[in-house]
Amino acid sequence: MTKKASIGVTGLAVMGRNLARNLARHGHTVALHNRSEQRTRELVEQFGSEGEFIPAHSAREFVDALERPRQVVVMVKAGAPTDAVIDEFAELLEPGDVIVDAGNAHFADTRRREAALRERGLHFVGTGVSGGEEGALHGPSIMPGGSKESYESLGPLLEDIAAKVDGTPCCAHIGPDGAGHFVKMVHNGIEYADMQLIAESFDLLRGALGYEPAQIAEIFRTWNTGRLDSYLIEITAEVLAHTDAATGKPFVDVVLDQAEQKGTGRWTVQIGLDLGIPITGIAEATFARSLSGHANLRAATKGLAGPSRTPLSGSDAERFADDVEQALYASKVVAYAQGFNQIQAGSAEYGWNVDLGSVASLWRGGCIIRAKFLDDIRAAFEAEPGLPTLLTSGDFRKAVEDAQDAWRSVVSTAVCLGIPTPGFSTALAYYDGLRADRLPAALVQGQRDYFGAHTYRRVDREGSFHTEWATGARPERPA
Amino acid sequence: MTKKASIGVTGLAVMGRNLARNLARHGHTVALHNRSEQRTRELVEQFGSEGEFIPAHSAREFVDALERPRQVVVMVKAGAPTDAVIDEFAELLEPGDVIVDAGNAHFADTRRREAALRERGLHFVGTGVSGGEEGALHGPSIMPGGSKESYESLGPLLEDIAAKVDGTPCCAHIGPDGAGHFVKMVHNGIEYADMQLIAESFDLLRGALGYEPAQIAEIFRTWNTGRLDSYLIEITAEVLAHTDAATGKPFVDVVLDQAEQKGTGRWTVQIGLDLGIPITGIAEATFARSLSGHANLRAATKGLAGPSRTPLSGSDAERFADDVEQALYASKVVAYAQGFNQIQAGSAEYGWNVDLGSVASLWRGGCIIRAKFLDDIRAAFEAEPGLPTLLTSGDFRKAVEDAQDAWRSVVSTAVCLGIPTPGFSTALAYYDGLRADRLPAALVQGQRDYFGAHTYRRVDREGSFHTEWATGARPERPA
Repeated sequence: MTKKASIGVTGLAVMGRNLARNLARHGHTVALHNRSEQRTRELVEQFGSEGEFIPAHSAREFVDALERPRQVVVMVKAGAPTDAVIDEFAELLEPGDVIVDAGNAHFADTRRREAALRERGLHFVGTGVSGGEEGALHGPSIMPGGSKESYESLGPLLEDIAAKVDGTPCCAHIGPDGAGHFVKMVHNGIEYADMQLIAESFDLLRGALGYEPAQIAEIFRTWNTGRLDSYLIEITAEVLAHTDAATGKPFVDVVLDQAEQKGTGRWTVQIGLDLGIPITGIAEATFARSLSGHANLRAATKGLAGPSRTPLSGSDAERFADDVEQALYASKVVAYAQGFNQIQAGSAEYGWNVDLGSVASLWRGGCIIRAKFLDDIRAAFEAEPGLPTLLTSGDFRKAVEDAQDAWRSVVSTAVCLGIPTPGFSTALAYYDGLRADRLPAALVQGQRDYFGAHTYRRVDREGSFHTEWATGARPERPA
Repeated sequence: MTKKASIGVTGLAVMGRNLARNLARHGHTVALHNRSEQRTRELVEQFGSEGEFIPAHSAREFVDALERPRQVVVMVKAGAPTDAVIDEFAELLEPGDVIVDAGNAHFADTRRREAALRERGLHFVGTGVSGGEEGALHGPSIMPGGSKESYESLGPLLEDIAAKVDGTPCCAHIGPDGAGHFVKMVHNGIEYADMQLIAESFDLLRGALGYEPAQIAEIFRTWNTGRLDSYLIEITAEVLAHTDAATGKPFVDVVLDQAEQKGTGRWTVQIGLDLGIPITGIAEATFARSLSGHANLRAATKGLAGPSRTPLSGSDAERFADDVEQALYASKVVAYAQGFNQIQAGSAEYGWNVDLGSVASLWRGGCIIRAKFLDDIRAAFEAEPGLPTLLTSGDFRKAVEDAQDAWRSVVSTAVCLGIPTPGFSTALAYYDGLRADRLPAALVQGQRDYFGAHTYRRVDREGSFHTEWATGARPERPA
């Protein structure tokens, strides 16, 4: 009897190919399938020596090559192509088999697909995979959703190929149906926020101090040895230190300043709105990218007046880089706190029971936002799983409170110099909004009652009330 | 032959009842229908003397009472109830008849319904109606979408009952299918932003100057005689001046400071994200309401450290109220500029050809955001229909540029005193982002190319490029 494969991968573009190679390198026999056979052949020709592959000529042959329960990883474009491939394999598989969607699906699609396949007795695992092409090959961060039962067979393989931090795999069962893709979505949203904050830090150091990119690269390198130690800070230093060969100019100065996006930031904000979670850091980052891309609008507004921008000098200048580090750290804590709150809310809404400490743990390695910082977040949620926000966790609280003077100083400097810091500003407004004794939301409620009879609640009595604004005496009545 | 009605209203809760009365008061014979006849009877009993009503006992009788083309205004809850009523009447009506949805439908639902009814030869008009119960009776702002043909019969009636400003009705044909509900949605989004900015102004005057609500009411009254002259400023002064009868305290101090929302702000931001339009003012306002409502989170974070908040004094204090007026005005221009850009983008996306000057014109009266200011916006778009943003229109440009020093001073003061001003801050960041020569989005593109090979464009050459970051020489290649 021929040896069977413990898992199969269909869709062998670079992400699928690298996942297949990663599995084979870890001693798993991997069945291979691709719509056009050319890619299957190339994989075996180029990387066949890395492990055991079973190339299949057809979907039928691919399925027949798999051990039971059969585990089919689908790595094709999100949307209609994913549906088509799932439909094709659902026909060929049998109850108890597992289909894994490792693409960037919207979690609502994953919920729909999981429910449909569950009806047919199949397990459907929507899994987030972060780390890009290199991560897929050398160890990504993996966020599988789906049934617990599916994780029993699939989990060990995914944990094998995941990144490891202190020996712990960056992979864990996230929760039922769409939980994995939801958590991956929030990961990407946080990534947007983090990148925006880093970009603002760079812009501030340049605009307020007049530093060149190479000098700022050195500052980021220094920061990367401390509490900001992270992949994004590391590569920021690399990008800023890079000189464009063609022009001899700093690389960052020859890049067109119009940021692009692929949609997961937008999804995160849209879902945050549905869940009523203020994820202002991700929203501002997403909008900042949109703004940067409106070339015509920017051209039309370029001459708008700003303040005279005299770089800082003397002791202000000396302190400024350190102040920016503190503002960046505090703003980052806020952005992550908001993202984790969104996961909490999604988990509650859909009954996923997501373990936030486990999410922080598996983001420590393999993914784009991997950072030392995430180990502190893991510890915070492990110590107090029901933490209402990272901002009240002992160490984070202290760090942010200690940073607040510098944070305020940096935002104030940015505002006075005309340097746009939507990310820093919104993070600070969130911090000040949360800690406010009273918010002017009371006035908003009064306005709403005035123009729309929407009623209001009171601080001193239960119930809803409405004031008859149109009459002179303005009587109040329970509504 | 019995006299027929020129229009009918089905759904006689307060909004439907008031629209029917408004129509009758303007000399139109109005057929009435409601699922339970009680409401129909009550309307005729209480208000029958206001005009000519034809109460109907059934949907059939209601339809038979209408002149052709029959015009049926549906005023029921958005969502499934609206679909049910539309389905019921679509069966009874004939080609050329008009169904009007005057509720707060999502424009995507309106597009779907319009397409389905068009197939059956019926006109479907999704129309925004703003002004609340009082507006519906005395003159709302009306934003009808749908075919031009439908507006020929329906328009004159709607213009009759709409608010009038300088003799011009606050009603105009917005554009095909979902255009009317889209514009109403953005109206509500702008309303959120405007209310948030006003709330922040109040909070600043109180927090930075230590003024009582009654004193601040006087300031708003003064502002209402100038360029900020608007319904929202007017009612803000009324709300702030109001004393709670039960406690003798300022009314605003006994209202629970948790703002509620009904969803149109959220929709506006979600659609803004889909369209790639940075509507940060509406987003921050929507999130500020969410934040205020998270009672547990706020309770948990209440003790977070803030700066010592010493009220301003001396010349700083004297200048501050005027500075806040300038910051409010400038932030408001930004919020409206963003909202109008969203309408532009929606119009382009769906081929609606919306006339922005006409939109500004019909928002001048009847609706919640009615303001003197909107006449200036009308003039700006009439002078230059393709205006890329209000910020480049002569008068607005000058006003915002003149305000910027005060605006920066106010935001900086808020940041230093720990008063949350997410709306002011994001408006200023947007202004500074637009006018920036270079944005750090270039760094974001560099990061994206580094970790995801997403490529970048250059300032000096056409095409997409990728740098091989992993190799020492980091060659760049066209992608």
